[in-house]
Amino acid sequence: MTVRFGLLGAGRIGKVHAKAVSGNPDATLVAVADAFPSAAEAIAAQYGCAVRTIEQIEAAGDIDAVVICTPTDTHADLIERFCRAGKAVFCEKPVDLDVERVRTCMKVVKETNGKLMVGFNRRFDPHFMAVRAAIDAGKIGDVEMVTITSRDPGAPPVDYIKRSGGIFRDMTIHDFDMARFLLGEEPVTVTATAAVLVDEAIGKAGDYDSVSVILQTASGRQAIISNSRRATYGYDQRIEVHGSKGMVSAENQRPVSIEVATGDGYTRPPLHDFFMTRYTEAYANEIAGFIGSLEKGAPLAPSGADGLAALVIADAALKSVKEKRQVSIG
Amino acid sequence: MTVRFGLLGAGRIGKVHAKAVSGNPDATLVAVADAFPSAAEAIAAQYGCAVRTIEQIEAAGDIDAVVICTPTDTHADLIERFCRAGKAVFCEKPVDLDVERVRTCMKVVKETNGKLMVGFNRRFDPHFMAVRAAIDAGKIGDVEMVTITSRDPGAPPVDYIKRSGGIFRDMTIHDFDMARFLLGEEPVTVTATAAVLVDEAIGKAGDYDSVSVILQTASGRQAIISNSRRATYGYDQRIEVHGSKGMVSAENQRPVSIEVATGDGYTRPPLHDFFMTRYTEAYANEIAGFIGSLEKGAPLAPSGADGLAALVIADAALKSVKEKRQVSIG
Amino acid sequence: MTVRFGLLGAGRIGKVHAKAVSGNPDATLVAVADAFPSAAEAIAAQYGCAVRTIEQIEAAGDIDAVVICTPTDTHADLIERFCRAGKAVFCEKPVDLDVERVRTCMKVVKETNGKLMVGFNRRFDPHFMAVRAAIDAGKIGDVEMVTITSRDPGAPPVDYIKRSGGIFRDMTIHDFDMARFLLGEEPVTVTATAAVLVDEAIGKAGDYDSVSVILQTASGRQAIISNSRRATYGYDQRIEVHGSKGMVSAENQRPVSIEVATGDGYTRPPLHDFFMTRYTEAYANEIAGFIGSLEKGAPLAPSGADGLAALVIADAALKSVKEKRQVSIG
Amino acid sequence: MTVRFGLLGAGRIGKVHAKAVSGNPDATLVAVADAFPSAAEAIAAQYGCAVRTIEQIEAAGDIDAVVICTPTDTHADLIERFCRAGKAVFCEKPVDLDVERVRTCMKVVKETNGKLMVGFNRRFDPHFMAVRAAIDAGKIGDVEMVTITSRDPGAPPVDYIKRSGGIFRDMTIHDFDMARFLLGEEPVTVTATAAVLVDEAIGKAGDYDSVSVILQTASGRQAIISNSRRATYGYDQRIEVHGSKGMVSAENQRPVSIEVATGDGYTRPPLHDFFMTRYTEAYANEIAGFIGSLEKGAPLAPSGADGLAALVIADAALKSVKEKRQVSIG
Repeated sequence: MTVRFGLLGAGRIGKVHAKAVSGNPDATLVAVADAFPSAAEAIAAQYGCAVRTIEQIEAAGDIDAVVICTPTDTHADLIERFCRAGKAVFCEKPVDLDVERVRTCMKVVKETNGKLMVGFNRRFDPHFMAVRAAIDAGKIGDVEMVTITSRDPGAPPVDYIKRSGGIFRDMTIHDFDMARFLLGEEPVTVTATAAVLVDEAIGKAGDYDSVSVILQTASGRQAIISNSRRATYGYDQRIEVHGSKGMVSAENQRPVSIEVATGDGYTRPPLHDFFMTRYTEAYANEIAGFIGSLEKGAPLAPSGADGLAALVIADAALKSVKEKRQVSIG
Repeated sequence: MTVRFGLLGAGRIGKVHAKAVSGNPDATLVAVADAFPSAAEAIAAQYGCAVRTIEQIEAAGDIDAVVICTPTDTHADLIERFCRAGKAVFCEKPVDLDVERVRTCMKVVKETNGKLMVGFNRRFDPHFMAVRAAIDAGKIGDVEMVTITSRDPGAPPVDYIKRSGGIFRDMTIHDFDMARFLLGEEPVTVTATAAVLVDEAIGKAGDYDSVSVILQTASGRQAIISNSRRATYGYDQRIEVHGSKGMVSAENQRPVSIEVATGDGYTRPPLHDFFMTRYTEAYANEIAGFIGSLEKGAPLAPSGADGLAALVIADAALKSVKEKRQVSIG
Repeated sequence: MTVRFGLLGAGRIGKVHAKAVSGNPDATLVAVADAFPSAAEAIAAQYGCAVRTIEQIEAAGDIDAVVICTPTDTHADLIERFCRAGKAVFCEKPVDLDVERVRTCMKVVKETNGKLMVGFNRRFDPHFMAVRAAIDAGKIGDVEMVTITSRDPGAPPVDYIKRSGGIFRDMTIHDFDMARFLLGEEPVTVTATAAVLVDEAIGKAGDYDSVSVILQTASGRQAIISNSRRATYGYDQRIEVHGSKGMVSAENQRPVSIEVATGDGYTRPPLHDFFMTRYTEAYANEIAGFIGSLEKGAPLAPSGADGLAALVIADAALKSVKEKRQVSIG
Repeated sequence: MTVRFGLLGAGRIGKVHAKAVSGNPDATLVAVADAFPSAAEAIAAQYGCAVRTIEQIEAAGDIDAVVICTPTDTHADLIERFCRAGKAVFCEKPVDLDVERVRTCMKVVKETNGKLMVGFNRRFDPHFMAVRAAIDAGKIGDVEMVTITSRDPGAPPVDYIKRSGGIFRDMTIHDFDMARFLLGEEPVTVTATAAVLVDEAIGKAGDYDSVSVILQTASGRQAIISNSRRATYGYDQRIEVHGSKGMVSAENQRPVSIEVATGDGYTRPPLHDFFMTRYTEAYANEIAGFIGSLEKGAPLAPSGADGLAALVIADAALKSVKEKRQVSIG
């Protein structure tokens, strides 16, 4: 069986998914749609697919699934439309920045018996997958303390910050999902601290750039998250899980692993400086996972419910900062 | 000039300091006192010093300084007595488990113009000193986020737990001091989460064994502390400081640095499994620092005020756990 | 400009190159030939190219370049034929196992003004490229001592060994090329030691499985090579270059970089266990390099002369083992 | 039982051994002798021992063992004298630079039933001991390939070079001993390459500064040694042993293990820059080993025969360089 795809959105991340779909032996990229015809045409030319409108893809009989890479504020609407049209949907995170909007969208997914997978790509990073596999294999016993260090190479433009929903909904949300992926239990409380240390303009836009978060589950398991919008040494993405029998960790990734030794010491190159080079394999793996699940008829994960759960934690974290107290989740 | 020492307490840590004093070219170990004569005699025999009572050391004209290694509940009294007797005092941490008792003791130290150094040995670990030196040298710019991972190889007996003042006053207090040492600003709030994951008996004794803490300074700098009373892989002691221009970290220490590679992977030995082997150099360095400061007439650090400051944070952390909110320090 | 390719040989390595050519925006895979029609048809189906005979590709007006992935004993003939046909040639190493045959082939390349690149893929590994770049940037001063550790996960079948030309011509030849790539001067002498430690059947086939080699240049620079046909921990591929101002090294690569810590120690997974996963990027980079050089009209490297030079060293190394003495190269 | 020591030679290495003997609970430093009275007096003052002449120590009834730290050309004579005097002897390497002189000395040791240990300190480095222990525990199966990288931070003065016996007898001799310690079989052939790359003055003095050596045992096991008289990044001392079931290695040691990450990369400090700080524990361990063996009546190792064996290899290595061929050992 071959899954026939329509791609909605031909921007930066759309190109990544176009490549993943085209390179997958079990998938075909049938059509692409974008508000900018030239962007769609470029992808069409490179991968030999058609340019269509969103409406045409919605109505198409030769398309089984869509990948939604359009702007965030269109995600929920498109999910609903394509679930109604009977297409399987892979949607870039987030479903929406507003919890209520996500909830109504999930209702539609449920009513239409829709198939929805949300793009928390980090779950598909081979290193993080191996961490999870080590936990599942019992190598560290019961999970007790999860530590997530997640720092961007540099802050996005303030314009982006303003539309982003804030650091918790835009950046930490990945770590909330990762904490849920690793803790083995749902977090029930969140305590967060936030400050503006990197760029005052971010503070003026009403957001933070440096945050620390503690999540706790009902049984007392804890996850610590450390975020900064700037790391001079590259894209700092580490996870570590301490358990009753041991610890498992995934170290940072760098483009080349050489070391130069001189009188000044031993120096390795900086880390990847861009999420798309850091998570190249993750992006390919998540589309492969989507296709594989569709073929097997297996449940899609991470699901819309996972997207919602992470957003609920983000909202609670913001509340914790504002009210200077521990906040119950959900 | 040679600093002439009396040693109060000939137990495990007393032996460590006896060795450090004896091996220091600028110091002499003159006498040792202990409630158990045989313990004192063993040290006297090994290092060729006298056995005396505490009163005799207090009155001695041939002793300039004392090292207090007696049980915790005697520390504050002995500090006061020896400051009054005009001896310089090195006291193992803590001064006392009760903040008010520490405050009255500090008053006596001040009134007598006493010289007091408190044994936060980790400040003298060569690796942690190098971290601090890198910060002072401007290598990472302004400090923003401090991360301290501190896990013991195994939990102490519950009897000890009961007398310890609890995990924050007994164990995390070292990390509170380290955070103060590295943050470059005083923390003003603390938020802590605590659970019993390692041993239910610890919970029955009214304490916790797994805690996560966030400290924040007035300008927004943050320190995260992760503690567990048990780590199967050894004595886990890491610090990492993220700043505006970079990051500096100190990795764990192990007795031997070999690696065995087989079909099962590449394996390095576990970490040190005991604080005394992990911090061997730190113990020697702190006594050398005490002696060096006395010789130069330099201020002693960490001081009694440092001991007090860490204890105040510990009390606030406990309050944060109980009241599920951020607590102002002091 | 687009380079139009014919692929000769649709086996394991042919598939790798088919993928690299197809995925390259500056290239098109026009046709594939293989003695086994089904192998050629599989590639044709996947990448939408034609199946042709070698003769058809030779005569084709719509093909600019070929990739030769046929059995070793056909390489020299095919190079000559396609140079005569005016096609640019990328040929998997080796050109031939016999130095004289390589020399006559090189003569034809020269007479026909042919364009030939030989597939020493390791020169295109991003980590080894970074080592070379560090040398070229002057980071270690003058090169003095090169150390190459190169061990296969396991020995090939004895049948392969018999046809391979022996360990020096089959395996160490990659390291001879790497030594030439890194030394910055031509080696002029070789001294080698060889033994059968892995598998007696290899010895019975007249070959060795464990060898140590020293190369030296006229100015005294030295390269050490350590080879084994078996490494339980994976595909061990390290290089290290010591110079007057420092050292640069490239460490081993593993599929995932996690670490599990328990009472038994800290364990990372084994290395890649297969050359095609270890050198995935190198294979893609070398085809990209071939295409890029053709487009720019730049000289192709590694050239046929590079292939010849490595083979000459291999022959000299074998002579050194047999005669128990240092042997002059060439 | 307490072993009563006389120390012959109060220079740099004499001080190291004085400290080790004094700090050992099973030993007493009774007397020290040195051609320079002030050097002997300094040690006598620090450790409370007597200053005596060599003759007095030879005749002393209160001395069981001597540590010989005098200039190299006196070693053999002193070993003979003190074996005749019935004292156990620990002698710094080498016994002598001349193989014949060592042989006659060994004869005297044998005739007098003397007890002699030679100071190959590296066998007592905890990391190298752990490598050997891993081999003995069967973790890597049969030893196949030993790789020793041994580079000094900087070349000694040319005056020293002239008296040193040359790089093989002065520097590589440690690696020859380590190879013997790790190979599990005696090497029977040596092949060496040598050059002057660091300092022309060394070449003018008739010596080399950069050498590569291959040793081979009768069964084909191989050891590779890479030496340079200069390494800008510190005292480079690594060993690696590849076997039928795996590999074990000991990495370099540095004074502090911090890492600074910036836009320029991740930098760890250089290695130790002096053999005495690198091998601090090894020096203490070897004296402890000497004392322990005397107390148990166990054979002393490394013995005079070990010292001789390494020197014989050194001579053969030099011959290999001169004659450009493999040379049989002994």
